[in-house]
Amino acid sequence: MATRLQPVPGVLVGTGAGGIKYRDRDDVTVFAFERPIPTAATFTRNRFAAAPVAVAKQHLRSGTSQAWLINSGNANCGTGQRGLTVASQSCAQLAATLHAPANRVLPFSTGVIMEQLSPTRLRAGSDKAARALQPNNWHAAARAIMTTDTCAKGASRQVKVKGGKLTVTGIAKGSGMIHPNMATMLAFIATDATVPRSWLSTCLRGAVAETFNSISVDGDTSTNDAVVLGATSAAGKQSAAELRQLTTAITEVCAQLATAIVADGEGATTTACVTVTGLATNRACQAMADAVAGSPLIKTMLYARDPNIGRLLMAIGKAPVRFDPAVVTISFNGKAAFRRGQRVTGFTEALAKRQMKAKQVAIGITAGKTKTSAQRLFCDLGPDYIKINAEYRS
Amino acid sequence: MATRLQPVPGVLVGTGAGGIKYRDRDDVTVFAFERPIPTAATFTRNRFAAAPVAVAKQHLRSGTSQAWLINSGNANCGTGQRGLTVASQSCAQLAATLHAPANRVLPFSTGVIMEQLSPTRLRAGSDKAARALQPNNWHAAARAIMTTDTCAKGASRQVKVKGGKLTVTGIAKGSGMIHPNMATMLAFIATDATVPRSWLSTCLRGAVAETFNSISVDGDTSTNDAVVLGATSAAGKQSAAELRQLTTAITEVCAQLATAIVADGEGATTTACVTVTGLATNRACQAMADAVAGSPLIKTMLYARDPNIGRLLMAIGKAPVRFDPAVVTISFNGKAAFRRGQRVTGFTEALAKRQMKAKQVAIGITAGKTKTSAQRLFCDLGPDYIKINAEYRS
Repeated sequence: MATRLQPVPGVLVGTGAGGIKYRDRDDVTVFAFERPIPTAATFTRNRFAAAPVAVAKQHLRSGTSQAWLINSGNANCGTGQRGLTVASQSCAQLAATLHAPANRVLPFSTGVIMEQLSPTRLRAGSDKAARALQPNNWHAAARAIMTTDTCAKGASRQVKVKGGKLTVTGIAKGSGMIHPNMATMLAFIATDATVPRSWLSTCLRGAVAETFNSISVDGDTSTNDAVVLGATSAAGKQSAAELRQLTTAITEVCAQLATAIVADGEGATTTACVTVTGLATNRACQAMADAVAGSPLIKTMLYARDPNIGRLLMAIGKAPVRFDPAVVTISFNGKAAFRRGQRVTGFTEALAKRQMKAKQVAIGITAGKTKTSAQRLFCDLGPDYIKINAEYRS
Repeated sequence: MATRLQPVPGVLVGTGAGGIKYRDRDDVTVFAFERPIPTAATFTRNRFAAAPVAVAKQHLRSGTSQAWLINSGNANCGTGQRGLTVASQSCAQLAATLHAPANRVLPFSTGVIMEQLSPTRLRAGSDKAARALQPNNWHAAARAIMTTDTCAKGASRQVKVKGGKLTVTGIAKGSGMIHPNMATMLAFIATDATVPRSWLSTCLRGAVAETFNSISVDGDTSTNDAVVLGATSAAGKQSAAELRQLTTAITEVCAQLATAIVADGEGATTTACVTVTGLATNRACQAMADAVAGSPLIKTMLYARDPNIGRLLMAIGKAPVRFDPAVVTISFNGKAAFRRGQRVTGFTEALAKRQMKAKQVAIGITAGKTKTSAQRLFCDLGPDYIKINAEYRS
């Protein structure tokens, strides 16, 4: 990770090795704040949401949190009452160490599903992480939350404000594949601005819709997905104009993290972006973009760098939305490829193939005359995806 | 193909080499009947349905057909007006050769999308196939319609009736993957029974729902999918009881063809069957079964013969249906694996792994107390799928 991750005033970060699954690396991360701070979060909608998701949602009813406790290697999902107890107790233990209320600690887990998470190992890691707390530990945290990720993911933005600056820093882990598993998507973002919980919720909802949710397909989410945003208020009060800049900064951090997740998709060698415009609603555009971004045939074509536009017709044609095939135009890296029911004269796959090798593929689909639109960033499907997912437990 | 394919009285079959895409093999198939016979068909619902699909639907408005003309190697899809002209003209040419009405010939194509189909080559193949017509050519036809298929697929059943027997024979091509492409699914089935078109339509609709549609996921269909059923009436009249036997025979032929398609899924090394019961409606059960059968993580797990039941939780939990996770039970090859929110004590993955290696995997999901149910047969996702789909045009 080349990016420099700025510490956020008011935020301490620590990591420790609990030996939950991995050897010779930290697998537990703690974020801690001096007092409960306004916190917003979005969680998976998977019906088998993991134990820590249930506990975090419950603890977040207050709208504030004083610590975040994250472990990698075990998802604590499909673990019944025992799993809930482990999640709750780990919060209580960390809270005692930090002299914080137990229900102000939010737990997060990522890793293998349906295996019991060892409370002893989690505690060992948590204790070490709590002892290691310091402002400048974001990089270590970005590494400690990884599972099948091949690189740590983080982003920072700073906004100049009257009398100083605001900082936004975030880290994330996860893969851009359509059905995350080990590759649960987690993101932790903090700022030193002074904002109420309602402001954070609105800001996060908007940022996630544009970024993390534009890399997921069909609303698929793993059992543990979560994005959290907290504000320490260490920087004092801001003006409305400054908060608008802050919104942009938070969205940019989310965008950088989301892009990093897609680029690190399991086995991915390249990424592509599909934009759909002109259908009845934005939602319909999203559904068509999902049909393209989620198609294994499009993903293998991308892997092969073989511009087989015919497969796009198939993927578009099966999207569960109403449209007139006769008005559809398709562009490939900016060049018109398909129009009025057939291939555009002069569009050669040889040219498209050269472009595919040179840069990220951009697929444009105009399916009508409205101003609606949707975009999806996705990665290719290569043999390493199968290697990773067929062998990761061996 | 070990199965013996019985000729169907009243049906002639011929194949020929047009050189449309493949060298050194037949790529055009003709089925011909003495006169227009009652015919039923189901077609793809893809909005970019190919030119031959449009022409076949139009010609089938009469409810009868006298010939079926099939080419492999080119889908004649995304080919505009020119593609429609090629499809119509090929019907007219074959009709002239056979002294049949042009609008009683049904055209079908499978292969690469968005490349123009050469009318010259199609005609060359069609002429040869028409000269080769004979009753006992079903095997040759099963081979001539193949694209990425690795084996020819056919099935026959005979039903004893008063004064003789009825025959049902069918051939099919296609792959069990979720998004067929080159692997368009086509099936051609004929019987010598005497039945009206309405009977054939009802029978085919029922058989397809139970068979071909239980191997497709999310209603995905390629641009060219079709299943056709014709009855020559060469065997004379049947009783109502005999027709019920015939319905069973036709469904069995469809089931055998559908199973062969899944087993020959691109790069597939094994198949699995998921059964969902207990949700509010059969449709809800189908949606949950599709979520499992369509998940790349379940498919790679199947390829690895690694019973990672946790992935099933993720796939079930993301199904777009209402259910209570607390009541879900999951069985794996008949053994209870997950119940009341956690792994069943005594369910060991070591045992499950041994079973996975020995036989087809059966996944059972009970998600409530109703009597609704749905079943999906699917195949694994292995490296050869990527090899085939990333390199098939090279």
